[in-house]
Amino acid sequence: MIAIETLRQHTLVGLELLGTAAFAVSGVLAAMRKRMDVVGICVCGFLAAFGGGTLRDVLIDRRPFFWAEHQVVLLGVLLLCLACATFLKRHDLESSEKLLAVPDALGLGLFCTTGLHLSWTLGQPPAVAIMMGVITGTFGGVLRDLVCNEIPSLFRDHRPYAVCALVGGVVYAALTWFGASEWIAVAACILVTTGMRLLTLWLDWKLPSVDAD
Amino acid sequence: MIAIETLRQHTLVGLELLGTAAFAVSGVLAAMRKRMDVVGICVCGFLAAFGGGTLRDVLIDRRPFFWAEHQVVLLGVLLLCLACATFLKRHDLESSEKLLAVPDALGLGLFCTTGLHLSWTLGQPPAVAIMMGVITGTFGGVLRDLVCNEIPSLFRDHRPYAVCALVGGVVYAALTWFGASEWIAVAACILVTTGMRLLTLWLDWKLPSVDAD
Amino acid sequence: MIAIETLRQHTLVGLELLGTAAFAVSGVLAAMRKRMDVVGICVCGFLAAFGGGTLRDVLIDRRPFFWAEHQVVLLGVLLLCLACATFLKRHDLESSEKLLAVPDALGLGLFCTTGLHLSWTLGQPPAVAIMMGVITGTFGGVLRDLVCNEIPSLFRDHRPYAVCALVGGVVYAALTWFGASEWIAVAACILVTTGMRLLTLWLDWKLPSVDAD
Repeated sequence: MIAIETLRQHTLVGLELLGTAAFAVSGVLAAMRKRMDVVGICVCGFLAAFGGGTLRDVLIDRRPFFWAEHQVVLLGVLLLCLACATFLKRHDLESSEKLLAVPDALGLGLFCTTGLHLSWTLGQPPAVAIMMGVITGTFGGVLRDLVCNEIPSLFRDHRPYAVCALVGGVVYAALTWFGASEWIAVAACILVTTGMRLLTLWLDWKLPSVDAD
Repeated sequence: MIAIETLRQHTLVGLELLGTAAFAVSGVLAAMRKRMDVVGICVCGFLAAFGGGTLRDVLIDRRPFFWAEHQVVLLGVLLLCLACATFLKRHDLESSEKLLAVPDALGLGLFCTTGLHLSWTLGQPPAVAIMMGVITGTFGGVLRDLVCNEIPSLFRDHRPYAVCALVGGVVYAALTWFGASEWIAVAACILVTTGMRLLTLWLDWKLPSVDAD
Repeated sequence: MIAIETLRQHTLVGLELLGTAAFAVSGVLAAMRKRMDVVGICVCGFLAAFGGGTLRDVLIDRRPFFWAEHQVVLLGVLLLCLACATFLKRHDLESSEKLLAVPDALGLGLFCTTGLHLSWTLGQPPAVAIMMGVITGTFGGVLRDLVCNEIPSLFRDHRPYAVCALVGGVVYAALTWFGASEWIAVAACILVTTGMRLLTLWLDWKLPSVDAD
């Protein structure tokens, strides 16, 4: 039993690091597209990777931050940003973005779930906990776009992203309501969020737009 | 006596909900003008409605947030944003804005006063408490404009807005200084801020601009 | 001994006020370049002067803020912003900027050092404490540029600024590691950061850019 529990923990940590790396690279690519210098590239990488979780921790007043406890992750992301800035060329930008779609969807599902689970176990009301999950999963990208002086793509690209995290959160809340065990709710939230994100990308679904005329 | 007190409380809560709704709609309109999708519209609505109070609570380290205690308000604003996104058309935008001027001025007066009163009763120095009031009343709009990738209109439209909140705050501080009861100071702050905002709109007053040549 | 200690303290406070004033004026100049009104000018001045330290205090959960304890500094910066807005003309902007280079480098060195020293004495890991120092020294300018709707110059002007703070922080950490006294580490961090910033400006050093083709 303990072996399975440990394996499960290790798998989750491994996936979370993969998601963090994908988010960091998305920040590096955004900064390179804006022709920032190496400082801007690293800050964008950090904001994309740690911004959502840090904002959540500020909102629920939780310290120390994840990255303040594990400075090795901080240094790892720094090295990753520097490596990307050194080895990526401008004509790689578009292909890198396509490669990122799957790990980015993983990051969304994992960050959303950890944020939601954390707020839920702190006893926050369901609507607030779900919102914290969505913020954890998506606001790293919002902060990244803001410092790049763009309207956040979360708000205007008409592809479901926050909506996937919202649906995952509702599934988690419903399962918990019906008495499912914690681990099942967590796994379902990850699978639904990440799966729905990949499905919508594959099927090219669009969010309804507001009638502009 | 208790009946009057209860009536006063209910009136205040009712006005505050009206102010929150006005701020949320201002966020929806700003997002629609930028042709955001439904996620962007809702986030802009939330930022405009809850951003100022949340920023104040982060600055004075107060938890839980107003909206984390009352998830029904959170859901109400979400429904309001979705309703606006569904029923408003682009050619309604300008007329909606004019309709919003009065409830928005109410929201400014009420949020400014609650922020100031809260900081004051926590024992912060007068200048800090007044600044907290101004931030509570105005920074929802600043955050809304920032995610819309605009210079915040608070900073450049030359119409008194923060200045009205500042004057209201000074009136509150002066009345408290001269020993007026808490309720009189609160009422005066709301009336002065909202009244001055409406008066300046009606008389078309402008803030001095910096000589640009 | 006590006299020397007191003199040292007074010198530090005096330098810190000079740095704060330089940062505030940089905010005023940025706002004037964007033709903001007097409210925008003051907010930009405040953000540039107090933004980095406030962000640090939010991240390490420290209250009250420096400016909430010393409302006289708050009022002083307000008067400085109003005076600049009144007396500076548009054609002064460029020459003011050159005059600001030295006090701004002082502010960078001092803010970076106080932020780092504070986090270090709170027991945070070295990499985190150094990052807090860099954030304290540089993010006032980042917030200033964000509300001016610009990509922060920290991220794109290819002149070492954050890098100077980083090098100063590493020197502090290395000296402390080798058992140097607190005052020596603090003095070295200020001197290295400010000196390196002035040197790089004088020699016109550039950060490596990413190959864009």
